[in-house]
Amino acid sequence: MSDLADAAKRLLLGRPVRSDRLGHTLLPKRIALPVFASDALSSVAYAPDEILLTLSLAGLTALTISPWVGMAVVLVMLTVVASYRQNVHAYPSGGGDYEVATVNLGPNAGVTVASALLVDYVLTVAVSISSGAQYAATALPALRGHETAFAIGLVVLLTLANLRGVKESGSAFAIPVYLFMFAIGAVAVVGAIRYATGTLPAAESAGLDLVGEGSLENGIAGIAGGFLVLRAFASGCAALTGVEAISNGVPAFEKPKSKNAATTLALLGGISVAMIMSILLLAGATGIRFAEDPAVQLLDGGVPVGEEYVQHPVISQLSAAVFQGLPFMAVLVAVVTGLILVLAANTAFNGFPVLGSILARDGYLPRQLHTRGDRLAFSNGIITLAAAAIALIWAFDAQVTRLIQLYIVGVFVSFTLSQLGMVRHWTRHLATEPDPKARIAMKRSRVINTIGLAMTATVLIIVLITKFTHGAYIAIIAMVAVFVLMKGIHGHYERVRAELALGADAEQAKALPSRVHALVLVSHLHRPTMRALAYARASRPHELEAVTVGVDADDVERLRAQWEEMGLPVPLKVLDSPFREITRPVLTYVRSIRRDSPRDLVVVYIPEYVVGHWWEQLLHNQSALRLKGRLLFTPGVVVASVPWQLASTEGQTGLEDPVRGTVPRGY
Amino acid sequence: MSDLADAAKRLLLGRPVRSDRLGHTLLPKRIALPVFASDALSSVAYAPDEILLTLSLAGLTALTISPWVGMAVVLVMLTVVASYRQNVHAYPSGGGDYEVATVNLGPNAGVTVASALLVDYVLTVAVSISSGAQYAATALPALRGHETAFAIGLVVLLTLANLRGVKESGSAFAIPVYLFMFAIGAVAVVGAIRYATGTLPAAESAGLDLVGEGSLENGIAGIAGGFLVLRAFASGCAALTGVEAISNGVPAFEKPKSKNAATTLALLGGISVAMIMSILLLAGATGIRFAEDPAVQLLDGGVPVGEEYVQHPVISQLSAAVFQGLPFMAVLVAVVTGLILVLAANTAFNGFPVLGSILARDGYLPRQLHTRGDRLAFSNGIITLAAAAIALIWAFDAQVTRLIQLYIVGVFVSFTLSQLGMVRHWTRHLATEPDPKARIAMKRSRVINTIGLAMTATVLIIVLITKFTHGAYIAIIAMVAVFVLMKGIHGHYERVRAELALGADAEQAKALPSRVHALVLVSHLHRPTMRALAYARASRPHELEAVTVGVDADDVERLRAQWEEMGLPVPLKVLDSPFREITRPVLTYVRSIRRDSPRDLVVVYIPEYVVGHWWEQLLHNQSALRLKGRLLFTPGVVVASVPWQLASTEGQTGLEDPVRGTVPRGY
Repeated sequence: MSDLADAAKRLLLGRPVRSDRLGHTLLPKRIALPVFASDALSSVAYAPDEILLTLSLAGLTALTISPWVGMAVVLVMLTVVASYRQNVHAYPSGGGDYEVATVNLGPNAGVTVASALLVDYVLTVAVSISSGAQYAATALPALRGHETAFAIGLVVLLTLANLRGVKESGSAFAIPVYLFMFAIGAVAVVGAIRYATGTLPAAESAGLDLVGEGSLENGIAGIAGGFLVLRAFASGCAALTGVEAISNGVPAFEKPKSKNAATTLALLGGISVAMIMSILLLAGATGIRFAEDPAVQLLDGGVPVGEEYVQHPVISQLSAAVFQGLPFMAVLVAVVTGLILVLAANTAFNGFPVLGSILARDGYLPRQLHTRGDRLAFSNGIITLAAAAIALIWAFDAQVTRLIQLYIVGVFVSFTLSQLGMVRHWTRHLATEPDPKARIAMKRSRVINTIGLAMTATVLIIVLITKFTHGAYIAIIAMVAVFVLMKGIHGHYERVRAELALGADAEQAKALPSRVHALVLVSHLHRPTMRALAYARASRPHELEAVTVGVDADDVERLRAQWEEMGLPVPLKVLDSPFREITRPVLTYVRSIRRDSPRDLVVVYIPEYVVGHWWEQLLHNQSALRLKGRLLFTPGVVVASVPWQLASTEGQTGLEDPVRGTVPRGY
Repeated sequence: MSDLADAAKRLLLGRPVRSDRLGHTLLPKRIALPVFASDALSSVAYAPDEILLTLSLAGLTALTISPWVGMAVVLVMLTVVASYRQNVHAYPSGGGDYEVATVNLGPNAGVTVASALLVDYVLTVAVSISSGAQYAATALPALRGHETAFAIGLVVLLTLANLRGVKESGSAFAIPVYLFMFAIGAVAVVGAIRYATGTLPAAESAGLDLVGEGSLENGIAGIAGGFLVLRAFASGCAALTGVEAISNGVPAFEKPKSKNAATTLALLGGISVAMIMSILLLAGATGIRFAEDPAVQLLDGGVPVGEEYVQHPVISQLSAAVFQGLPFMAVLVAVVTGLILVLAANTAFNGFPVLGSILARDGYLPRQLHTRGDRLAFSNGIITLAAAAIALIWAFDAQVTRLIQLYIVGVFVSFTLSQLGMVRHWTRHLATEPDPKARIAMKRSRVINTIGLAMTATVLIIVLITKFTHGAYIAIIAMVAVFVLMKGIHGHYERVRAELALGADAEQAKALPSRVHALVLVSHLHRPTMRALAYARASRPHELEAVTVGVDADDVERLRAQWEEMGLPVPLKVLDSPFREITRPVLTYVRSIRRDSPRDLVVVYIPEYVVGHWWEQLLHNQSALRLKGRLLFTPGVVVASVPWQLASTEGQTGLEDPVRGTVPRGY
């Protein structure tokens, strides 16, 4: 890479960080909360909206039950937070659900959890960024119609920020997260006071009529209506997706890691619950009408409002009503909400690479994902996550309502298996724990995890039933694909490990080939050829031949004459090539040497041009590269590249390659 | 490549052909005529249409002058054929216009001609195939709207046919070309007889009114009208594009090559001229109305016919009228015309790779284009041509009227420079030729070429003036780009040749490095490492070290313990890597060795996994490959790959690679 590109990379990503500074990137609670909890908190920006618009299909009266749906979500949230506080204490290593499931339920359960989480991390980025782009388009009408491009641009920016490293991301993201908490808190408090004093104005959409879907004429009373309520609940459970990010991120916390993580988890649960309920209750109090298809479902004086009606998100409508007369507050809420959504995706950018790296360490993903790149971030994982999220945003046109149907399945697969694993964990430990005090704590933990298991399994079933045909099947297919891929990679690495291991034949492996037979490939007699000959001679092989492939009789004759004229002390062998090939005659000759003296080592010296520009590569080396590739398939052959640095490489030292941190752990 | 892919290639392309069978692929005149002349002949299928529709812009009366425009084209055709008969005698080597221009006007003129011809070959394929697709859509209405995809499919089929080799293409294509001559001949003869006997029916469009463009209300009388007539003439000159293909294809003729080529050229000229004039005259006699924009320009009872009107090509309308009552004859003419257009593209498939190969031999294109592939065809050139033509068809929606605006410029650039070159050629030879008889023949030839020069230069100017803004500028930009590219490649090869040549220092180049310092890269102690160590030891270097990069202290300790336990007689050196890199510490160490002993040769042995499937490559070797790439930039270093064939390579011998004929001529 050129100096310029290197400089640009430094500018964007900062200077590389030494390994021994790894400890410095740990997070105190006040930074860890915004970094890891922004996902769960930010879902306040779309989860209530999805509850309301799903219920809207059953008509206006259905909206009134939204606080009850919200309560159900809150119940699940509190149970799951309580359960995961047990997890972070029992498994502080950051493997999170993957580790819990692997240790207690076996590798297949672990890989299932990992597949589910990887897919859900991608969806977290896609949903949060898409929702953020929609908030931005509400605020800046010029963005309308370009949400997809805008969302993809945001993912790219986030990717660069994360390639700079964890800590700096945390600091940069803490302020907006706290601002968001303050903003939603202000809406809730002011709204509650104005409601109590009877001065709460109606929302902008309160004057509209809302009609449901024709097939749901009984509202939420019938079977279809009940199903709809469950679907609204399932969408609302998007609020839970941040929880497992904390349990996977324990190693990034300051010591005591587990305790700090558990506290952060409890804080997250409390804040999240308060926000969701405030918003749903205030939405009812201000009479917000929120529809899945506003153009048709919302009526103004009996007439559908049509395509030009812009349905602002619930939080925007709420803050406009609550802060009537204080327009700058409404603007602040909208801006901060848009911002927090973008930052929420950062949770996944912290969680995904860590999980990917653990999976790579265990041989389920390519070793490259275990590489710490510049700035100690897991660069490859970050880039993989970004690419997948961009593909998803592009495929779904950045539409939150469509993306959210794929969401949550993975998280609840992971929740359920993790809680099952925790139940097993306590049962196993109880079998050997003699201390009665510890036994009581363990039994208490087991009860909490059992309740968590029952709750998350129930939600998983509800999510699967209500969302399968709406898009969850896509997420399931993706998980199965990731599962199969990871099992395949693992099987491959295991086979290779067995193949390479030194076994009983370790001493035998020290045996040397009896003789070295060197060949120098010659096409013309020029300086690279002379260098290859000199190097081959300097290595003093037992036998040395120059080999050329005879395609054109005149060329061969000319070469032979030059050879003799130069008086080179190496015999020149001409190989026939009736089909005008280079590769096959050489391979055949090498094989014949090996056949005649199977214990000999054949070293093939190939002069190779080293070029300074990629396009020069197209003009040279085509035959040499193909031959090299094929020779490597022949046992007992060493391919020695003798480089000739063309003048265009001047100033390139081989040291300026800015790709760092290429550490193949494993092998 | 797998056996299956190899078998599929054999099935499509046939078995490879030995060099000594090259003579067997020469063409007798009866095959050469259809192979090389089908382009010029087939332009009868669109050139009259383009003359008529261009004139149509000036209204109905303008159509009546079409035979005069046709006569002008015929005049140019006869002049050019006469001129080129001189060329094929003087330059029988197949370099054609490129060779003539290079020898007589210098390399820049030659490269200009070559650029022009390469671009025009691509356009020949694009125009012929697009026109063929339009004929097919006329016959098969189901194809309408899918012309582009159909045309691209045809190019792919032609490409495969040509990769099989020249002769088989010739035989396969001869029959349809002769059928086409017969069909058009039948239309002309039967049409003439029926006209003479007063029984020639009117064409299907004869009853329609034709209105011109508003801006051309004076018809062809004004300046704009005159300009339009010149543009119609320029389009009609598309009929000349086949001529230079024969002069470039002389080496493919049977002996006496030049005489046979000249005869074929004369035949082509005669047949082509007869066809064009017959069609234009019969079009007038049957009252065909042919418009550039038929939906608007054609009126039925004073009302525009609208978008649903299908304007059949002139030949289709003619044969329907001439063979009224014999519908199968009209169908035969349409089918054969469609077929000949597809086959016409084959002319370019014969000419382009030959020219590309000559240019590659002279160092103006990458060496790979000089490679004869399977079946003795110039595979790389064929594939390049096909790719460019497909891009053009795709970009212009397979619309002949738009593509034809780009056409012909190149051919007339080449014609003009070639004729200028021929005039110089005769002048030069006359200066030294003493034989009076030979001098008379030469002077006659020079007169013919001078007339040819005047004629082609005039046409070139007309084409440039009338078509520049209609699209010719694109062709000119493409030619300039190709010119610059070829000069750049040539400059590069020249620089490299000078750099590599053995000069006064030839003896010095024989000097050997004083000592060999071998390094074996070690990451783990497994079988590939053991093999690399054994091979390195067998080569008996003056110094041998095992080198590992210390990233993780535990890993290093484990390796060191294993090393001692195995009792390996090679010292293990650990390189520090504070930034967790592999490449940089190794490069730095190699450089330090070179600095301490500049006359030593450093051989770096790298164990490398050889995998059986491409995706396995993603799972291995990433660090090794990057390191190898960087090491090659360091002078005095040989990189020795010690392959370890993983089990997945079993059955792969390195011999099954079906890419043949990789002969780097030059260097």
